[in-house]
Amino acid sequence: MSDLNETHDPALRSWLQSANDDTLGFPVQNLPYCVFRRAGSAEAWRPGTGIGDRILDLAALARMRPFTGDAARALAACEDTGLNTLMALDAACWSALRLALSRALRAGSPLRDRIEPLLVAQKDAEFSVPARIGDYTDFYISLHHATSVGRQFRPDNPLLPNYKWVPIGYHGRASSIGVGQDFHRPVGQTRPAQEGGVPGFGPCARLDYEVEIGVFIGTGNAQGHRIPMDQAEAHIFGITVLNDWSARDLQAWEYQPLGPFLSKNFASTISPWIVTLEALAPFRVPFERGAGEPQPLPYLASAHNSAAGAFDVRLRTELSTAQSRDQGKPAAALAQSNFRDAYWSIGQLVAHHTVNGCNLQPGDLLGTGTLSGPQPDQAGSLLELTQGGKVPITLPWGETRTFLQDGDEVSLSAECVKAGYPRLSFGAAAARVLPALD
Amino acid sequence: MSDLNETHDPALRSWLQSANDDTLGFPVQNLPYCVFRRAGSAEAWRPGTGIGDRILDLAALARMRPFTGDAARALAACEDTGLNTLMALDAACWSALRLALSRALRAGSPLRDRIEPLLVAQKDAEFSVPARIGDYTDFYISLHHATSVGRQFRPDNPLLPNYKWVPIGYHGRASSIGVGQDFHRPVGQTRPAQEGGVPGFGPCARLDYEVEIGVFIGTGNAQGHRIPMDQAEAHIFGITVLNDWSARDLQAWEYQPLGPFLSKNFASTISPWIVTLEALAPFRVPFERGAGEPQPLPYLASAHNSAAGAFDVRLRTELSTAQSRDQGKPAAALAQSNFRDAYWSIGQLVAHHTVNGCNLQPGDLLGTGTLSGPQPDQAGSLLELTQGGKVPITLPWGETRTFLQDGDEVSLSAECVKAGYPRLSFGAAAARVLPALD
Repeated sequence: MSDLNETHDPALRSWLQSANDDTLGFPVQNLPYCVFRRAGSAEAWRPGTGIGDRILDLAALARMRPFTGDAARALAACEDTGLNTLMALDAACWSALRLALSRALRAGSPLRDRIEPLLVAQKDAEFSVPARIGDYTDFYISLHHATSVGRQFRPDNPLLPNYKWVPIGYHGRASSIGVGQDFHRPVGQTRPAQEGGVPGFGPCARLDYEVEIGVFIGTGNAQGHRIPMDQAEAHIFGITVLNDWSARDLQAWEYQPLGPFLSKNFASTISPWIVTLEALAPFRVPFERGAGEPQPLPYLASAHNSAAGAFDVRLRTELSTAQSRDQGKPAAALAQSNFRDAYWSIGQLVAHHTVNGCNLQPGDLLGTGTLSGPQPDQAGSLLELTQGGKVPITLPWGETRTFLQDGDEVSLSAECVKAGYPRLSFGAAAARVLPALD
Repeated sequence: MSDLNETHDPALRSWLQSANDDTLGFPVQNLPYCVFRRAGSAEAWRPGTGIGDRILDLAALARMRPFTGDAARALAACEDTGLNTLMALDAACWSALRLALSRALRAGSPLRDRIEPLLVAQKDAEFSVPARIGDYTDFYISLHHATSVGRQFRPDNPLLPNYKWVPIGYHGRASSIGVGQDFHRPVGQTRPAQEGGVPGFGPCARLDYEVEIGVFIGTGNAQGHRIPMDQAEAHIFGITVLNDWSARDLQAWEYQPLGPFLSKNFASTISPWIVTLEALAPFRVPFERGAGEPQPLPYLASAHNSAAGAFDVRLRTELSTAQSRDQGKPAAALAQSNFRDAYWSIGQLVAHHTVNGCNLQPGDLLGTGTLSGPQPDQAGSLLELTQGGKVPITLPWGETRTFLQDGDEVSLSAECVKAGYPRLSFGAAAARVLPALD
């Protein structure tokens, strides 16, 4: 699966001109999946693949039956309102569909005339969460994030003894995951002003974002039967960008002893696009531990993981405010980080999650946890950028922020970039904070 | 909704003789819901209601269209493979269906001849999880459990400062919830033998059960819009018995800082039966806080909750082992407790869960957390009964236990009992521990 094949040829061009525009990030080498319909219509939600500034309607393509074999089987699975049926197939089917779509969308394809009418402009579409997410798990795989946040919550004990052995994770809320829906500032309890006093109650005053990668599970496993490391990646359909909005003041009061709850479950935002692992093959990098780091236990280790288990994916955080939009200013870049700096790999997340027999299902989502880099300007949250709200940041148009204010819009985007290969975009997880409701 | 009506008349008898057998606990005053099919068949799963030793097939009844108005609307919602469509209606519809079913199953009903062929013997049925559970949340609402377990994990700090203000909860795993499926002992990491050493890895050595009530959400709420206390119970469809199997050694090593994960998500077991809140009306009791306890914040308080927000439901834990079954011994009663001793009410769980705008959906499940009583023999887990494994219990046939061994079967049952009213049974959440897989 990590091998390069003809779909990764950097010289490939599409008959659709916008696909060859490197600024868009949707070349024929990408082919990410989404679920969409025409904006404002009552059409059924249906799977699509992104190409240039368009979406190829895969449900409509399926009805034309243009492919054979595994590709036909995979395409038929796109006659669904989510990607779950396609996800439930196997990596061989996903690969066959990718190859067939790549050939169909390349310059010179004999299918062009039949396919072109099935393209919908991305600007005319609205998007749904791309799968029915049964369970959502959030991990905590950035050592840099865990250390700097741990220092704020537990100054004397920032990194707990289990961190370098256990891919720490917890279950999150599936129902409140959306693609771009604005949301109301959450309300809740906060720590009493004085020990033993009555807790505070009201709108969250320390609202934050968290930059994450989301991993969509494809093929699941039967309850009781673990997925070993050497098969783990074959169960992953693809990855997206995820914003795990966090209410820090609610979190600080509620999280002991069972973990975050209302501080996280009011909203999570993902990009509408899922980039497949196969599309990411050219951006694989070794997954390495430093010389002083413990090696993972055997159930979390494989030669493939060491050689190519990490991904070079650049993450970027942008913020606009009511004022900046009024003034027509561009959004401010807050930070950049890279997925490759994570302490655990996505294969390890799958192997760990199932080692106890827990069953994953097609469409399940795993979040990586905040992906911060080693440098201060690579922090994946305001909690880190402002040192827990103690040091405000100044935005280019003069406003300052410790945490998010009403009207603020955060956009998390991701891309793969390297010399000699077309740029791959993940789109953006973007949403705006609305005032709290009574 | 808490008012008694004609369905609660203790004098009501059914034309089905076994319904009038108080030892069964399925009188015409109960009418719990399940999802079933004939065991070993390939029939579609479908909703049913329990009556005596039978199940009335509600999908088949729906096709006869015997009711009108809200009852007809509710019955039509039973043409589903789960109870979700019925749950998504409102309390008025649920109540209308209960009244219509009560009248249809009473002695003298003119519908008897049409309905009797739709009864299936419970012993000939197999059961499914009664709803598609979108999200599963587990709470921690027994002060007695929180205190005695807290003492083991944090001897100097058993009850954290938030406990009496925040109904502590966290998200659990929906995919691994079953009704009676045996499961393999989980495998995982455990705390290193010496600080700084390599963690242990292998089958869980401290496998435990937890006695809980499960709350099924009926009508949901839109994201961003909280459910106030005075409407909270109207969003609850009914309750069941839940065993939140727990791997204590995995939990102790993994749970900081984000809470339990693999120690809980390998399996959870519920009874196939959901008893509706309306059926429980005769067993409501005041929800009271002791004189020294803080009163809940306003969003967690209502006059109805104080007057009648708790339920007198008796919980019973039984254990059988490979040896006891070989020898034909009856299962051992380990403990009994009562749901009324909980520190938070089910209405408060709904109001708290949604105060931040989190959206609940029909079929979501809320666990109460382990329901232990104030006395040592009312403990809802082995962790408590054996003082963390330090004091083994001796079973009537001579075996001892600290934690569960392979072959052990735990059965949690619940019932409502009071003088002058028929006994209501919740059935049992029962499953057996199988050996760990490699």
